[in-house]
Amino acid sequence: MPPLGKQWIAGETEVGKAGRFHAANPLTREPIDSETSEADGSQVARAASAAANAFEGYRKVAPKQRAVFLRTIAANIEALGETLIERADLETALGVDRLRGERARTTGQLKLFADLIEEGSWVDARIDHADPNRKPMPKPDVRRMLIPIGPVAVFAASNFPLAFSVPGGDTASALAAGCPVVVKAHPAHPGTSELVAGAITQSVRQFDLPAGVFSLVHGTNNATSISLVQDEHIAAVAFTGSLRGGRALFDAAAARPKPIPVFAEMGSVNPVFILPGALAERKESLAQGLKQSITAGVGQFCTKPGVVVGLAGDPFTKLSESLSQLLQTVPAGALLHGSILEAYARGSDQLGAIKGVGVHRAAGQPNRATPTLFTTDGAKFLNHAALREELFGPSSVLVEASDVQQMLKIARAMDGHLTATVHGTEADIAANAELIDILQQRVGRVIINGYPTGVEVCSAMNHGGPYPATTDARSTSVGTAAIERFVRPICLQGFPTTALPPELQDANPRNIWRLVDNRRTKDSI
Amino acid sequence: MPPLGKQWIAGETEVGKAGRFHAANPLTREPIDSETSEADGSQVARAASAAANAFEGYRKVAPKQRAVFLRTIAANIEALGETLIERADLETALGVDRLRGERARTTGQLKLFADLIEEGSWVDARIDHADPNRKPMPKPDVRRMLIPIGPVAVFAASNFPLAFSVPGGDTASALAAGCPVVVKAHPAHPGTSELVAGAITQSVRQFDLPAGVFSLVHGTNNATSISLVQDEHIAAVAFTGSLRGGRALFDAAAARPKPIPVFAEMGSVNPVFILPGALAERKESLAQGLKQSITAGVGQFCTKPGVVVGLAGDPFTKLSESLSQLLQTVPAGALLHGSILEAYARGSDQLGAIKGVGVHRAAGQPNRATPTLFTTDGAKFLNHAALREELFGPSSVLVEASDVQQMLKIARAMDGHLTATVHGTEADIAANAELIDILQQRVGRVIINGYPTGVEVCSAMNHGGPYPATTDARSTSVGTAAIERFVRPICLQGFPTTALPPELQDANPRNIWRLVDNRRTKDSI
Repeated sequence: MPPLGKQWIAGETEVGKAGRFHAANPLTREPIDSETSEADGSQVARAASAAANAFEGYRKVAPKQRAVFLRTIAANIEALGETLIERADLETALGVDRLRGERARTTGQLKLFADLIEEGSWVDARIDHADPNRKPMPKPDVRRMLIPIGPVAVFAASNFPLAFSVPGGDTASALAAGCPVVVKAHPAHPGTSELVAGAITQSVRQFDLPAGVFSLVHGTNNATSISLVQDEHIAAVAFTGSLRGGRALFDAAAARPKPIPVFAEMGSVNPVFILPGALAERKESLAQGLKQSITAGVGQFCTKPGVVVGLAGDPFTKLSESLSQLLQTVPAGALLHGSILEAYARGSDQLGAIKGVGVHRAAGQPNRATPTLFTTDGAKFLNHAALREELFGPSSVLVEASDVQQMLKIARAMDGHLTATVHGTEADIAANAELIDILQQRVGRVIINGYPTGVEVCSAMNHGGPYPATTDARSTSVGTAAIERFVRPICLQGFPTTALPPELQDANPRNIWRLVDNRRTKDSI
Repeated sequence: MPPLGKQWIAGETEVGKAGRFHAANPLTREPIDSETSEADGSQVARAASAAANAFEGYRKVAPKQRAVFLRTIAANIEALGETLIERADLETALGVDRLRGERARTTGQLKLFADLIEEGSWVDARIDHADPNRKPMPKPDVRRMLIPIGPVAVFAASNFPLAFSVPGGDTASALAAGCPVVVKAHPAHPGTSELVAGAITQSVRQFDLPAGVFSLVHGTNNATSISLVQDEHIAAVAFTGSLRGGRALFDAAAARPKPIPVFAEMGSVNPVFILPGALAERKESLAQGLKQSITAGVGQFCTKPGVVVGLAGDPFTKLSESLSQLLQTVPAGALLHGSILEAYARGSDQLGAIKGVGVHRAAGQPNRATPTLFTTDGAKFLNHAALREELFGPSSVLVEASDVQQMLKIARAMDGHLTATVHGTEADIAANAELIDILQQRVGRVIINGYPTGVEVCSAMNHGGPYPATTDARSTSVGTAAIERFVRPICLQGFPTTALPPELQDANPRNIWRLVDNRRTKDSI
């Protein structure tokens, strides 16, 4: 294990000049061995400036070479072996099995984006040929494709130390698009961040790419983050974390002399609606599935089902009892860091204090989050906004709706979320089209007869949703479409073939799908 | 001609409660016949609320029916005949020929979007099938497509009273996407706006659509505009106009409790670079073309070439002389409204006052803008930011660069613009790849051997660019891709066929191009 505690700025390790902090062991809340140094404003500015310089060269690197670069990052992360897993477990207490799975997902994402840019059609190339004889004006030759937007600032999440962190989907999609990346590491897992940053830097060196293609800075204060977002060289921001944090970055970006887009994935309650047919058919498997989804990762998934709604009656009461009992069999777990643990305790107390809210949980343990089921009825749920807000950790609010109308009212009262889930038989689904329609208006993904946790990384995935789930409902942070955040169209009019990029040449040397004179084709012209 | 002066709110005309104003005849600067009433806050709120109500129904209208609706709007605008042209000419003084051409472009845009949504592939449908046997976790069935984002506020431009105004590209693309529209009319052509609003309202009635699908409000004060942008029912904003106006709307939208996207197309200088080979070959045709492009629409195009750069030497001096003489043969013209005229006079004085800037123009006339060529050298151009800023009206700044290095420096000093143009022989283009590369980084469209005015409406067009050309470089306001501003992805996981929209059903009843298990195909599955 190399000595840790440093930034990686444009290929070199550097001691941060702003101060030092200790990450804590989530199991003991004791400081972890080594200190981490924090970047100061000048170091952040240097990373951003190096990214801007690197952009000049990196954006011209051919997609096939960028693809090999991404695969090399994956290989270099794998080559860190158990050193990485052990460090990540020390800093997150998520367990080595989960972390090995997350590593596979992370390297899988890098390879997915490599495949995407190697295939190449994602640039949405469009060609409209000239018509010199058109009246009243000749028609010009007009061609268009997507090009990288510039250096991207990535703010790593605490809850996925790999897959939504330094080498996660934001970094993978930005690098795939042709954008250099400056990552602000999450202070809960600085060692993990640094190890991976070393693996990425090594890949940059292997391909002799401009060193500023990748930098990592540490920081615990907001000023560091704001200075990165407001740096003139940064062209876009990706963030995964809290509503407060995401909104602060959004506001800082909007206040710039030249505003830039912020793709912040923030909180989500992920409501689940249980319809009567499903409840009658499979109460026990529903209780099992919900327990699993609520407590996976100690409830620290953005897509954790935080609210479960069903219709009043004996079957729902039984589901409530089963789920309550099952949750009490799940051991209390360590949360990622102290402030999450404190927020979980505070939020749980707040919900429990609402008159008419039942609290079901086993006895607590120090420094651990106890799985908790809160129960209430539809009227109280509608009256208390706190019940509809995200509580990070292994808990959920079970809501007994008096009838279908109240269930619809609850669905309409929902704010913007990443997901909503409906459990129902075929007849349930057919009879509740309105519910499903309402939910589609409020979330980025609707799941039928599944669970929102375990987000599939694929072309059709959307991990986003209306505010406050994200700051930009038009974007996803998971799946191949995530690359669309970091590009913009360029239109080339009247260009001779020799001045056109391969993607827009008549001969179609990249063999990509294009829209040619409004016809979709892979043909050369 | 019906009596004018009213709002059209959700299908009915209404007298505005906030006050009254007169539009002025640009030729005489005298008030035009009728008074126009301005909407107050309650009327704006009612229009936005009606749009939100209408969204529930309108978003479910099948694309083929929406296409017929758009074509009917085009037909109803055409049916207004010369009444519309005469009114538009009275309010803008752009001339009946230009206005007939603009009407054709406007109805053409509506038909283009009708064709786009009828064909249907623009929704970017993606299907990833399930794999229940995948290890370690089964793979779910995941499908995704684009859906309308909600009611759109459109702020009409002064310089295109039809094509970038009430029935323009913003309205056409929003309605095509499935979004209701509330238009804030430009106060310089309220009668034109109202006539067209009547034609759109008539189309809404013919199809028995929810009345709130379209509303038009008048207003001359910023508070009306801000109240529309900050109305909770509005989901996105489109704007064409000044940097100050666009930025104010952007700031208001970013400050909302729930921020919304603002697609503001603002100023642009549209630099033109003349390379030596082209200058040697076709000085005279260049001077003619530049004269035409600088003075078209009395220089009131967003894409007017406001800066022309060439290399010092005899050929460039001759171009300067020819262009200067040609511009003096173009009669002074009426500008759209008093504040543009005043800004043109003020801006011209400011540029003329810079030491070493030559001013070439014929004698002026009251209430008219005189075509003007400003001449300067590269060093002064780089030293005076005012020379690099947009001046709306029939003028341009001709810059003599000392050498190629200074030309590149000038290109690098350029801010974000809609377009940049390069004139050169094949050898020039090959020898100046760096110049073209720099320009691509700063604009939304690069033109070789053409002129930036006369924006082609087609699939490959991009009318956008880095800030301050727009507030979102990832978007275009012209061409079919303009529809992408008003949609967001929705992901449907585990849905039975009966609950899926046609675009995502295996059988592909809409016969659209889709990405199915990462393969692009029109096949049913």
